[in-house]
Amino acid sequence: MSPVKSIRLALLGCGVVGTEVVRLLHEQADDLTARIGAPLELVGIAVRRPGRERGDLPVDASLFTTDALGLVKRDDVDVVIEVVGGIEPARTWLVEALRAGKSVITANKALLAEDGGALHDAAAEGGSDLYYEASVAGAIPLLRPLRESLHGDRVTAVTGIVNGTTNFILSSMASTGAGFNEALEEATELGYAEADPTADVEGFDAAAKAAILASLAFHTRVTAADVFREGMTGVTAGDMASAREMGCTIKLLCIAQRTAESVSVRVHPAMIPLSHPLASVGDAFNAVFVETEAAGPLMFYGRGAGGRPTASAVLGDIVAAARNRLTGTRAPSESNYASLTVRPIGESMTRYHISLDVAEKPGVLATVAGVFAQHEVSIATVRQSGRADDAKLVIVTHSAPDAALAATVEALSKLDIVRSIASVLRVEGTPS
Amino acid sequence: MSPVKSIRLALLGCGVVGTEVVRLLHEQADDLTARIGAPLELVGIAVRRPGRERGDLPVDASLFTTDALGLVKRDDVDVVIEVVGGIEPARTWLVEALRAGKSVITANKALLAEDGGALHDAAAEGGSDLYYEASVAGAIPLLRPLRESLHGDRVTAVTGIVNGTTNFILSSMASTGAGFNEALEEATELGYAEADPTADVEGFDAAAKAAILASLAFHTRVTAADVFREGMTGVTAGDMASAREMGCTIKLLCIAQRTAESVSVRVHPAMIPLSHPLASVGDAFNAVFVETEAAGPLMFYGRGAGGRPTASAVLGDIVAAARNRLTGTRAPSESNYASLTVRPIGESMTRYHISLDVAEKPGVLATVAGVFAQHEVSIATVRQSGRADDAKLVIVTHSAPDAALAATVEALSKLDIVRSIASVLRVEGTPS
Repeated sequence: MSPVKSIRLALLGCGVVGTEVVRLLHEQADDLTARIGAPLELVGIAVRRPGRERGDLPVDASLFTTDALGLVKRDDVDVVIEVVGGIEPARTWLVEALRAGKSVITANKALLAEDGGALHDAAAEGGSDLYYEASVAGAIPLLRPLRESLHGDRVTAVTGIVNGTTNFILSSMASTGAGFNEALEEATELGYAEADPTADVEGFDAAAKAAILASLAFHTRVTAADVFREGMTGVTAGDMASAREMGCTIKLLCIAQRTAESVSVRVHPAMIPLSHPLASVGDAFNAVFVETEAAGPLMFYGRGAGGRPTASAVLGDIVAAARNRLTGTRAPSESNYASLTVRPIGESMTRYHISLDVAEKPGVLATVAGVFAQHEVSIATVRQSGRADDAKLVIVTHSAPDAALAATVEALSKLDIVRSIASVLRVEGTPS
Repeated sequence: MSPVKSIRLALLGCGVVGTEVVRLLHEQADDLTARIGAPLELVGIAVRRPGRERGDLPVDASLFTTDALGLVKRDDVDVVIEVVGGIEPARTWLVEALRAGKSVITANKALLAEDGGALHDAAAEGGSDLYYEASVAGAIPLLRPLRESLHGDRVTAVTGIVNGTTNFILSSMASTGAGFNEALEEATELGYAEADPTADVEGFDAAAKAAILASLAFHTRVTAADVFREGMTGVTAGDMASAREMGCTIKLLCIAQRTAESVSVRVHPAMIPLSHPLASVGDAFNAVFVETEAAGPLMFYGRGAGGRPTASAVLGDIVAAARNRLTGTRAPSESNYASLTVRPIGESMTRYHISLDVAEKPGVLATVAGVFAQHEVSIATVRQSGRADDAKLVIVTHSAPDAALAATVEALSKLDIVRSIASVLRVEGTPS
């Protein structure tokens, strides 16, 4: 027995991540005790089905309970770890814990993005620590650098690949020439995509993470509702081939940018040049590219998901929270002093790559170019490939307000000479 | 005027980094005050020549002093920032400051690697904060993740490109086919290499950083004297071409690895496969690849040098130290509980790429292979290219103790049929 009082942990949820948290607490117990200066003790695990077979999980069966709220309220619990997910009842549990002065570790990106303010307010009320490294980009130490290391600098942009499922699909489309459905099927077979992949492929997961990153980077509360979101189900094998011809690839990006008085936060597929550090992030890996005024470009790379990598991030937070409790100190509290306005997508400055099927007639390019000029969108490059029955125009614009670009595409679709708009993709990571 | 007491800073050194620290403190004053909750106030700058012209530096000339020790001892100084470098008198100043309970921020890698223990001991004695994010990989938030985020995990290896000068030279050799001297000349002209490049090209700078990284990663005091060091001046255009033929490039790496009971720390040029994330780190950029038991591979990428990027890291530490002073808390103290043994280089397991000029005779390969077998070094691949007057053998080994490999090379050099050993390079980043 250690002479030092132990730090007592309550775990809410024991699925893929929770199981690995339990295992790591067990495997690394001696190291954790040495690093913290006191032992960690798991005093309860809230689950829906306590009787479920849990193989060789190294804990006593008596720790399991279905009464999560009761566990959270126990006087002898110091740190509450939530790996259940979803808005309710997680929010109720965590607000309760924080108000009561307990430290909270959560991987719940949906809750943080939807109503992180409720958690931060409860933490301020209770004088409690709120850590959530595992909520974005799994194992990658990313939030602590943003929350602490870069606080002497000004972040101007964060561009990230924060969803492993869609990165696996797009990497596979890029390397094999497969279409979206085929690549999704492969991802599902290999366990990279869930049975219902909507949250991933429609960008909801990435949008939640974008809100969390933007809040930290810009000292401003940003919620999922502030994030413009476009999924990647419309990316075709033809788009990928077209990207390759331009020396680019296509990634589902979360992009948060700031100007003097406002920020814009969006998630959508985009072409990026192969020379960009994010372009070579393959497989189900995550990476986040951070631009600052003084430090210049930074990139953080690693596994964004998986039970054990995510549990590593949770454990790092547990060590920090436990140390704080022992020394009677607190993590830096929420920094939202900047309170910048979130700009609508229409005001974001972007570039478009537009591919049109057009009639093979003289004057087509002049007419099309006229539409761009009318909307004050400047064209960077045009490629025409013409066969009598299948003429194509591929146009890349200079940077322009997204609303002007959208209006241009809308006007083009109404021209008789435009048979169809084969694809519209934003282009990122290059000078305008 | 703020009603809150300001945090008072003393700056030791006002060269490239110090100047940028002063500028950032000025430019970002409002943001820093908001993030910290109190204003920062620069109360003194110790320099050798206070009368020197400092252009438009936004500080009062009265702040400059030559009496660094006197400045450190002032009762009204809260935080001491050292950007002078070198062992003495920096060590005396910082030990004095830490013992007196002042927070210390330093970018001094040489001092930390040579006698970091003296600083950590003084910090423990004074109950003071010691931060040194800027000492390794400049702007990249790397030490805080190692020191805090990964404390719930076990780091097994750290492999880094931590010297921008040599990475610029090697990247240039790889892309242009230039030799070392030509690439060094270009680096000097562009300001990437100093007039005396010894510390960079001979690996002293990288070795100091390797000691700091290994200490943090393995919870063990490692000094520069523990680090095996081999410079990169011997890397030839031929080596680079040979690397390319093998699908590799050559980088100057710092490598820290742990086994159950010991660590090995070394700096040397090595071939790595082009598919390794470190291979595409070009120009003067730095990147550090961290492998852990639970999180899997992680990479941190950014600018490793330059006044402004380095100053960004210093400012991040200033914010952390200032917050701690306001809330009466401390940074995590030194973690050296593991006290692992540092293995000599001879016991490191590595792979060698050996290029031999040999006599064109029957039986040469059999003789050479016999020497490897005698030293229990297993050969992975052999390529022979023969002209009557210039026969070549290129051999890549499997993983073996470095001492056995060195003895093999020694024995080969004594064979009559070996005209010369054209090059010996370690191979990293691939399975053995």
